[in-house]
Amino acid sequence: MTQDRNRNRRFVLQQRPHGAPDANTFRLLDEPVPTPQEGQVLLRTLFLSLDPYMRGRLSDAPSYAAPVEIGATMVGGTVSRVEASRNPDFPVGQLVLGYSGWQDYALSDGSGLNKLGDDVAQSSRALGVLGMPGFTAYMGLLDIGQPKSGETVVVAAASGAVGSLVGQIAKIQGARAVGIAGGAEKCRYVVEELGFDACIDHRAPDFAQQLAKACPDGIDVYFENVGGAVFDAVLPLLNTKARIPVCGLIANYNATALPPGPDRLGLLEGILLTKRIRMQGFIIFDDYGHRYGEFFKQMSEWLEQGKIKFREDIVDGLENAPQALNGLLEGKNFGKLVIRVAQG
Amino acid sequence: MTQDRNRNRRFVLQQRPHGAPDANTFRLLDEPVPTPQEGQVLLRTLFLSLDPYMRGRLSDAPSYAAPVEIGATMVGGTVSRVEASRNPDFPVGQLVLGYSGWQDYALSDGSGLNKLGDDVAQSSRALGVLGMPGFTAYMGLLDIGQPKSGETVVVAAASGAVGSLVGQIAKIQGARAVGIAGGAEKCRYVVEELGFDACIDHRAPDFAQQLAKACPDGIDVYFENVGGAVFDAVLPLLNTKARIPVCGLIANYNATALPPGPDRLGLLEGILLTKRIRMQGFIIFDDYGHRYGEFFKQMSEWLEQGKIKFREDIVDGLENAPQALNGLLEGKNFGKLVIRVAQG
Repeated sequence: MTQDRNRNRRFVLQQRPHGAPDANTFRLLDEPVPTPQEGQVLLRTLFLSLDPYMRGRLSDAPSYAAPVEIGATMVGGTVSRVEASRNPDFPVGQLVLGYSGWQDYALSDGSGLNKLGDDVAQSSRALGVLGMPGFTAYMGLLDIGQPKSGETVVVAAASGAVGSLVGQIAKIQGARAVGIAGGAEKCRYVVEELGFDACIDHRAPDFAQQLAKACPDGIDVYFENVGGAVFDAVLPLLNTKARIPVCGLIANYNATALPPGPDRLGLLEGILLTKRIRMQGFIIFDDYGHRYGEFFKQMSEWLEQGKIKFREDIVDGLENAPQALNGLLEGKNFGKLVIRVAQG
Repeated sequence: MTQDRNRNRRFVLQQRPHGAPDANTFRLLDEPVPTPQEGQVLLRTLFLSLDPYMRGRLSDAPSYAAPVEIGATMVGGTVSRVEASRNPDFPVGQLVLGYSGWQDYALSDGSGLNKLGDDVAQSSRALGVLGMPGFTAYMGLLDIGQPKSGETVVVAAASGAVGSLVGQIAKIQGARAVGIAGGAEKCRYVVEELGFDACIDHRAPDFAQQLAKACPDGIDVYFENVGGAVFDAVLPLLNTKARIPVCGLIANYNATALPPGPDRLGLLEGILLTKRIRMQGFIIFDDYGHRYGEFFKQMSEWLEQGKIKFREDIVDGLENAPQALNGLLEGKNFGKLVIRVAQG
């Protein structure tokens, strides 16, 4: 089922999931392609970014961003081509970074669109290494984590969009990078391709012991993007004056209830106190939007110099987005997950 | 039982407490007064400071400071007079701030001693408003909490040594100060004498509702010195971008086990993330020792200008120190708790 120039397929939120998203969560509509009015452009989606934060948007629990309304198009970052234009700023054929969501076509008045270069093959980088995930890794690690030369930085989902960059930026800063990933293949990639000092498989029965062994001098920066059992294993290894930027908690996103006791909330407070730890949540564009230019310049330079590698996990077909999102929440992707909605 | 110029009473740690310290925790020895060697001074204790951190020193759980050894003199900050001197830097009669611990007399080679002015009545301020508790309030609030004009600052133990200053410094910064204290008398003092905007009695059955009502715009800075049920009531009121300096967790110090579930460790992480909160533990002299001069100058100025009030809870007699420490851990003191070991 590929893109049809006459029809717009779009996924709307049908029902909020309880636990993992399921067959009732989204509904695929098939509608006529809309027509741009004066000042508008028609965008045709080429790439759709899938990211862990999307699970939060499906829920109406209090959060930093409003939930997707029932019946509304599911949100998401996109690379699109201008297909028809009644806006002189965006000529037909222009590639743009935008936020069209889970659909083939979208209208826009141009606000929030960023123009991209002509190379379709390179354009998906704007959703990954040069986009939100890269910016998240860069600011969280450097502004909150502040790794110093010789310190140990630990990050989970180490083969993923954010984690892979956290470790590589840590190495550029002269720190030791220890990754955590699911399975031997990902761990091999993290060490051999990305240059981390070590990578531990969180599925191993002796995971906590292996992590301790890989961090003989303790942990100075833990970049928190998963929570759950990984954080449990990290806690006893944290050094005095450690920093914990909190960018995500993917292990908890599908949880329907708090885990059983004992209640370790006070224990965590006690560790923060006695070890004088700084733990800080951040939402990348809300907290650091004004520094995007700085990030983009530095990351582009590192890419040119070959100092940063990245991997994309490209899934073909908009219709596969719901299943791919579930896979992402379970750690099944290998690299930045992107849906190729159309070939260009 | 008062000080005897020929005998040194000293409390040693006899047995680590399980839960609250009890009759077996300390043992009172009666020994000859020691004689200073060349380069040493003999100090006679006038005031002994009792502070919540002392509970941690009784335990051998991993912490930021080594525990008091079994059989060793219990530690504590003191104001003393030089009684005999073989050190030209410290003449007989000089008042000094030091760390003699729970005893009448101590030898010192002068290291770590700070000379105080001649006024005995004022000297105990060096253990409170101008000492460790004042410094803790000042740096924790201003460096980590960073209250802005119009923001809401909440602090518990609001009539105590640290809490009373946190609220008053918050007011000087133009913030709203909401205190929490145990009982109507303390709450009245906190509002009427110290000038907090409100003070909630944590013993009230509807404490959480009262706190919410006293913070109609939420909480921007929560200065954490108690933990437990107070933190539970604070959590849902925290604003986006709130800051939580963590200086103590007195509610947990005597706990012998973690509370029953559910496990809210991940919940706390989730709140830090979605509200982008900074939570940071600190140990005052370890983290801020180099800024003591700045604090001392500013606090002295505020005291002179009448902008800061403080209250001491003075208990007479070294022999009453164990009972007074237990009272402190239960919130029975009213103001900075100091043992008057001798009259001067």
